[in-house]
Order: sequence, then structure tokens, then C-alpha cells
Amino acid sequence: MAVAWHSSVSQNPPLIGVSIAPKRFTYELILEAQEFAINFLPIEKAELIAAVGGSPGREVDKFQKFNLAKEQPLKTTAPILKDAYATYECKLAEHQTYGDHEWFVGEIVATHFMEESFNPAGILDLAHVNPALFLGAELYATTAKGSVRHLERDRYGKGYK
Amino acid sequence: MAVAWHSSVSQNPPLIGVSIAPKRFTYELILEAQEFAINFLPIEKAELIAAVGGSPGREVDKFQKFNLAKEQPLKTTAPILKDAYATYECKLAEHQTYGDHEWFVGEIVATHFMEESFNPAGILDLAHVNPALFLGAELYATTAKGSVRHLERDRYGKGYK
Repeated sequence: MAVAWHSSVSQNPPLIGVSIAPKRFTYELILEAQEFAINFLPIEKAELIAAVGGSPGREVDKFQKFNLAKEQPLKTTAPILKDAYATYECKLAEHQTYGDHEWFVGEIVATHFMEESFNPAGILDLAHVNPALFLGAELYATTAKGSVRHLERDRYGKGYK
Repeated sequence: MAVAWHSSVSQNPPLIGVSIAPKRFTYELILEAQEFAINFLPIEKAELIAAVGGSPGREVDKFQKFNLAKEQPLKTTAPILKDAYATYECKLAEHQTYGDHEWFVGEIVATHFMEESFNPAGILDLAHVNPALFLGAELYATTAKGSVRHLERDRYGKGYK
């Protein structure tokens, strides 16, 4: 499925959360498998995100229908998409109901990265990847390549005017 | 403080989570006040984000030091920044420890929006606002104005090739 709501929640151990409504097929799949993968796709694959988000997983084999190329997972059996510039393999650590969604927190046990998508410090390199950003309501955008700014917290913390 | 990790977690009721390390001054402040505000700033205010993120709140009155203009909160006593294109006032609903961070979940009880920043459907209008996106490691970027695409899930769910 396509997920809009997600966030890292811990650095050590590395934990990430995703918010999924109980009515989704993915909800059942994660509880059953106790593991999942989070695939980050570039804007060039926005049609694929809309497609996967727009078809019901209970009725459709999306991997077959959309001809999704997969890579071999390293530590789970979760699907790793070849089109992703980054994928986290996660073991379900805990989950919690917040309002009308379930918050699944996974421990990142393996990662996959597309070459050149990240700089040596592990930061997304916007010169080489255009991350898909979901704005809501079927709208997608990406980052402005030339907009990256390096602002040292220590320096600016002393005042910037 | 400046927060990198956050996500909506429920639509009804409207809940949002933010991840904060226990050593931060903000951690204490939220537990004490049982409420907080999340201010979303444009890239034009990236220096301010770096400044607020880079100075210790226990020792410095950041509102005074950085001359932060505030608006009147509606349903809390939390600080609403004039520079924000959107602000959520939140009442602490629950909180949970995940690894080395605390996940604070707040119910959004009031919102503030800068005119023209959102379209009538409530979606961020990238023609009128340049959201600050934190890449990690003191790097900030924004969105590409011309990159917005409208992809109907229903249509693409039927196939896109």
C-alpha cells in the first residue's frame, strides 16, 4: 500500500512508525507477518504510488498487476522494490491505536539504498534523487534541486541578524 | 525547539505526534503544560529554525533573543509564531517511549493558517509557500514550485501503462 503518515521515532535503536487504518489489507498483513518494509520512491514513480494506493490489495495482486520489480530482502520476507531509492526492512517492535489509525513501530533491521541517492554522511542527495512528496488529495510534488542550504545550528544559535 | 520527526497519526479525532528526546527542555515543558503548538515555517525562515534548534532553551529566552513575533493562541497557552504558514495548537493526548525518544501525541484543538498558503481543499499551495524541509545534518531544502502533479488513485489503480 501507499502510506502518507510516517516518521522516525528513535535513533538508537533505529525505530520508525507508520500509520495505517485498520480497514486496510496491509494492517492484517503486518500483524500476521510481524514485519514490513518501507519503500521510498522518487517522483518519477508517482504514477506507481497512485496505482498501488488506488487498488485494493485484498482483490488484486499488485506485484503482478503493476509488474513490480523486487529485490531480495536481507533480514525479512518483506517486499523490496527495485524502483525505491531507499528501503527499510523492519521487524514489528510494537503497535498502538491512536484515534482511527494504528501506529506500527518497526525496528529497522536492514536497509537498501540506490547508489548516489545519499551523500557520504547518509543525507539524501537532492542533486541525484527527486523524492516523491505527498501533499494530500492525490497531489504529489518533489524538492527543488538548487534549494539546499547548510545552516550550522551552533553558529545560528548564537544569533543570525 | 526545532523538531524533525513528526507525523499525523489519526484523522478523527485529529491527532499528531512529535518525537522528542528526554534530555530536551521541551520534553519537560510539554509534560508540565500538557499542551504544545507545532509551527510550520517556510524555507525563508530556515535561519530561524537553525537558531532555535541550536540554542539551549534552559539557558536562553529564545523569544527574546531571536525577537520571535507571536500571535494569540486560541485554545492553549502555547506559542504561535507569526512566521509560520501553519500552526497546530495541541492538547497532549498521550505519550509513549520508543527507544531513545518520547512520542508525544496531541489532539489538534485549533489551527492557524497564513492566507493563500492552502487551497480551498486544505492542501498546501506550493505556488504560494515554500515549506522548509529538513534533510538532516543541518541541511534544509524546499519544494519545486512547478513539480505538483495530480494523479487520481482510482484511475491509476486500474493501471497506468
